Amino acid sequence: MNKNRIDAVVNNMKEAGLDYLLISEPSSIDYLIDYVNNPGERMYVLMLAANGAHKLFFNKLFFVENDLGIEIVWHSDTDDATKTIADYVENSGTIGVDKHWSANFLLSLMEKLPDVKFVNGSFCVDFVRMVKDENEQVLMIEASRINDQAIHEVIHQVSLGLSELEVAGKLSGIYSKFGGDGNSFDAIIAYGANGANPHHENDDSHLKPGDSIIIDMGCKYNGYCSDMTRTVFYQEVSEEAKEVYGLVRLANETAEAMIKPGVRLCDIDKAARDIITDAGYGKEFNHRLGHFIGKDVHEFGDVSVNFDLEVKEGMIFSIEPGIYLPGKFGVRIEDLVMVTKDGCKVLNSYPKDLFVI
Amino acid sequence: MNKNRIDAVVNNMKEAGLDYLLISEPSSIDYLIDYVNNPGERMYVLMLAANGAHKLFFNKLFFVENDLGIEIVWHSDTDDATKTIADYVENSGTIGVDKHWSANFLLSLMEKLPDVKFVNGSFCVDFVRMVKDENEQVLMIEASRINDQAIHEVIHQVSLGLSELEVAGKLSGIYSKFGGDGNSFDAIIAYGANGANPHHENDDSHLKPGDSIIIDMGCKYNGYCSDMTRTVFYQEVSEEAKEVYGLVRLANETAEAMIKPGVRLCDIDKAARDIITDAGYGKEFNHRLGHFIGKDVHEFGDVSVNFDLEVKEGMIFSIEPGIYLPGKFGVRIEDLVMVTKDGCKVLNSYPKDLFVI
Repeated sequence: MNKNRIDAVVNNMKEAGLDYLLISEPSSIDYLIDYVNNPGERMYVLMLAANGAHKLFFNKLFFVENDLGIEIVWHSDTDDATKTIADYVENSGTIGVDKHWSANFLLSLMEKLPDVKFVNGSFCVDFVRMVKDENEQVLMIEASRINDQAIHEVIHQVSLGLSELEVAGKLSGIYSKFGGDGNSFDAIIAYGANGANPHHENDDSHLKPGDSIIIDMGCKYNGYCSDMTRTVFYQEVSEEAKEVYGLVRLANETAEAMIKPGVRLCDIDKAARDIITDAGYGKEFNHRLGHFIGKDVHEFGDVSVNFDLEVKEGMIFSIEPGIYLPGKFGVRIEDLVMVTKDGCKVLNSYPKDLFVI
Repeated sequence: MNKNRIDAVVNNMKEAGLDYLLISEPSSIDYLIDYVNNPGERMYVLMLAANGAHKLFFNKLFFVENDLGIEIVWHSDTDDATKTIADYVENSGTIGVDKHWSANFLLSLMEKLPDVKFVNGSFCVDFVRMVKDENEQVLMIEASRINDQAIHEVIHQVSLGLSELEVAGKLSGIYSKFGGDGNSFDAIIAYGANGANPHHENDDSHLKPGDSIIIDMGCKYNGYCSDMTRTVFYQEVSEEAKEVYGLVRLANETAEAMIKPGVRLCDIDKAARDIITDAGYGKEFNHRLGHFIGKDVHEFGDVSVNFDLEVKEGMIFSIEPGIYLPGKFGVRIEDLVMVTKDGCKVLNSYPKDLFVI
């Protein structure tokens, strides 16, 4: 149980007028009480109470070895799970629920507590999770160090002539060689025009001379995620691809150079986007510049026009501009960055020079 | 767009008195309109209407190449996504929502439609998905055939002395060799006492003589999942382990032998469970006997005391009894079975004899 983090969440609850907060995201529960669980379709809720009477609602199949420092209320598969929550709260006031809580549980609890006002309360946790403490920073730095080592090996495998799926199949083995705990998401290995489709799923494509090769990969390390992208080329590279690569690299490096406490997320996005738009590729950069990351590979918070939040020391997010030319090729360059006292540390050191393999 | 399937769902909606059904599970949407999408945190809803005015609510970032045969209502990341739904329905009547729809969307829609009654409406789709049509059966048979081939190779890799994580790291490569499209879930490779902890995550354990080796693995094939478990032993096997193995095998084979249309799921569970309980290991078989499977590795429907539903031709589910002795070893034997006109076809043919490798 992490008292500092829980206190910070409860403070946010009080400011927002919530009597209770029902937290169901396993990564948020792990963040607050140091307990990893994969509940599948079963109800799994950490209830924080403004009055301090926090409780965990657990299925008897969940496995607890140590005292978690918090009262556990058990239910079994044949119980009405949300009744165990309703038994502990008044039928009045305001309850915040996790943004991802499943509708079956929420609707079932609402029926039992018709006079309660239910609201999305995830921001109370999300704003705390956005800023990584020192221990988390150490783990994130190591996860990205492993990722830097692994991508070198992946590029070597690509150069041997394997298909996208064959390369992706080697990745978890490569991570375990370097001390990672497996993939943090399904890696994208996209050859040529496949890289221009942001929804491409790895297939049995093989390389043709001139192909761009997008490699977007990340591992887990002690519960924390890495995530990086490099784009290299096979045997030759067209003038158009060189130009696009230079633009994406400039957008990536310009954004990274301006990051420091006080700068707004939307302005970082704009700086990178302007470079690409001014060169005529604005429509071909069709996603946010970056996302927050930590225990989950995508955490709350975007580097985009939607977030005018100022960055703070300890925030970690991705910077990943891209240009996608349908039918031709795609280029994306992504690093994780950690905001420091007066700037930022780029967590990926793998080179960004244009490589032809 | 699959008219037969949609008609079946709409019939269920009418019987349940639903005016609309908001379907958000990507696998259910794919099942109904043949469109695969991974929406991440973005709103993604197929709205079926009792009056036939079906609609798809799509983010502009989703990629549509072909006409999906259904009206699309677009929104962008900066729009209020649930407003696009509210604009098309009356503020009255009953709307069913997906059991897994995220609370942020549900609460936001409820605010806009305060006089609508919202209920969990997933059963309208789930009961249709439970019975696989001929095309689905062919894909499921092939996915399990690939799994049978792959487990032989995995057992060979285990015998070479690799760690749990090293074996698991080879799996997606093995699947692609045999024509599979990658893992359908994170495989469990558990050596010795690790196999007795149902929450064990693969680690760098190596084999010791006498260890049980639980291998629980599955692949995807054209969008459909396989899932099987075998338990083998390393170098030697104790008398206790032999007895437990025999019981689990008997429970597995007894259950499979009784499956035919009209038999209740709970009775299949009971037949297997009684064998294990009568031998004194009832508490050590601490999970349901099986689960439904198809596009998702876990679909709605359990082979357990909770489901008194009678099985029908075309249903496909797992039969996976197990006995787990903490600190010692675990044994689980799992096949997929498909209910036929007068019995069932076991989709896994890999042998269940006790192997010592």
